[in-house]
Amino acid sequence: MIVNLEILCIGNELLIGKIKDTNAHYLATKATQLGVNVNRVTVIQDIVEEIAKTILECVERKPQFIVTTGGLGPTFDDKTLQGIAQALNCPLEVNAQALEMVKQRCEEYAAKRHMQTQIELTASRVKMATLPKGTQPVNNPLGSAPGVHVNFGGTILFALPGVPAEMEAIFAESIAPLFKVVVGGNVFCERSLFVDGVTESHLVPLVDKVMMDNVGVYVKSHPMRSEGKPYLEIHLTMRATQEQKPVEKLRKAAKELAVLIEASGGRIQAES
Amino acid sequence: MIVNLEILCIGNELLIGKIKDTNAHYLATKATQLGVNVNRVTVIQDIVEEIAKTILECVERKPQFIVTTGGLGPTFDDKTLQGIAQALNCPLEVNAQALEMVKQRCEEYAAKRHMQTQIELTASRVKMATLPKGTQPVNNPLGSAPGVHVNFGGTILFALPGVPAEMEAIFAESIAPLFKVVVGGNVFCERSLFVDGVTESHLVPLVDKVMMDNVGVYVKSHPMRSEGKPYLEIHLTMRATQEQKPVEKLRKAAKELAVLIEASGGRIQAES
Repeated sequence: MIVNLEILCIGNELLIGKIKDTNAHYLATKATQLGVNVNRVTVIQDIVEEIAKTILECVERKPQFIVTTGGLGPTFDDKTLQGIAQALNCPLEVNAQALEMVKQRCEEYAAKRHMQTQIELTASRVKMATLPKGTQPVNNPLGSAPGVHVNFGGTILFALPGVPAEMEAIFAESIAPLFKVVVGGNVFCERSLFVDGVTESHLVPLVDKVMMDNVGVYVKSHPMRSEGKPYLEIHLTMRATQEQKPVEKLRKAAKELAVLIEASGGRIQAES
Repeated sequence: MIVNLEILCIGNELLIGKIKDTNAHYLATKATQLGVNVNRVTVIQDIVEEIAKTILECVERKPQFIVTTGGLGPTFDDKTLQGIAQALNCPLEVNAQALEMVKQRCEEYAAKRHMQTQIELTASRVKMATLPKGTQPVNNPLGSAPGVHVNFGGTILFALPGVPAEMEAIFAESIAPLFKVVVGGNVFCERSLFVDGVTESHLVPLVDKVMMDNVGVYVKSHPMRSEGKPYLEIHLTMRATQEQKPVEKLRKAAKELAVLIEASGGRIQAES
């Protein structure tokens, strides 16, 4: 079964170029390695209506999973939970379990700094525990804003914080194990040939032939410039169960392609 | 006038994490600096129907500009032009001007390498000059695949190659000058305070007050971890005409915020 994921990154700072997003690349890489098919990444601004509308567009495409990043913090411009509530058409309410999580992180923070004062549950801290009704908090091992688990019928949405370390910690603890179970036996395999002495245009008929002869193997060439010389990475990938022997199939396809490339004057510089 | 831009990055390699996209960040940064408002970035796979559908979704949101990256090359998986043709519901045809551009780049390439052979216009080279009917090629100063200028009524779409150096060269030569004209007097200004000794939660009421008192100034805090200590960048931005004196307004807002932060126990470590 193909398991689809959409990634939705929320934050003005990403769209003005202030912050170079690394979360989408992290999630795309990890999900792909777990055998999940990442359909789409969308980056939008901190606007409640925009968040709600975009989530509903994602849900309409019926991926099994949506992961959002950003907008869960204490400040006024953290609007992801309001956006989810609007998409679900349900109110926001303080979630007791989430409030306990926020409190615990604050206490840990104070203890680490030997602060004597009582931790105050300020409005901005309570905000992080104010979730759309019917959603569940997800433990954030590193920060005060919990993740949120939302059920949209056939689609499960996880809202994660934008701070990369926190997002990665929640993904590793609560999402990756779930992806593994849902994906079942599917794995993603890849193999690369590094080639010079031929241009991408020359390779077209050779790649076509190898893809025709090796059903299920996807071949893509990536031009890489190296001191002005044409230099290509030919990337072969396959998503399949182990029983379908993807590693062997990729090795066979890469070998066939290497023979064709060398016969037409190219050189295989490396293989990995 | 607010000028909106949507960025659409096309390529499986971005969604499997094989390539870390840098094009969206480059375009978002440059466009923002030119006073353009970047609404959304979308990353999709090399599937013709998906490209067509997503372009039409972008057009429906009525931005003045869409810039796509990727999928203009000679290989079978370069499908952006097919996607645009499907979105326009018009055929692909060899464009004489584009063919001339492709030929010229190939000849330059051969001359640089002192190749004696006649440049052959192979099918894969002709493919790069086969544009949706009614669209115009845009000069690519660095590579063989021309950019493409497409008119969707109120929205102008530029299709650029995915190779960063080529994308940047076309942007600088043909798009940035157009953005400047369309944007008119609008500029984007920013100012940052680097703060420690306070948490983001503490800052909420202070930021609220400064935003209330300084209409048009947007304030966002970015948590940055530095040896486990809370450390925040407070980023103040404004998009306005020079007559509205955005630099002075940002300076005034930053000063007010700094006073409030220091009064509540925080320290301003730096300002830029």
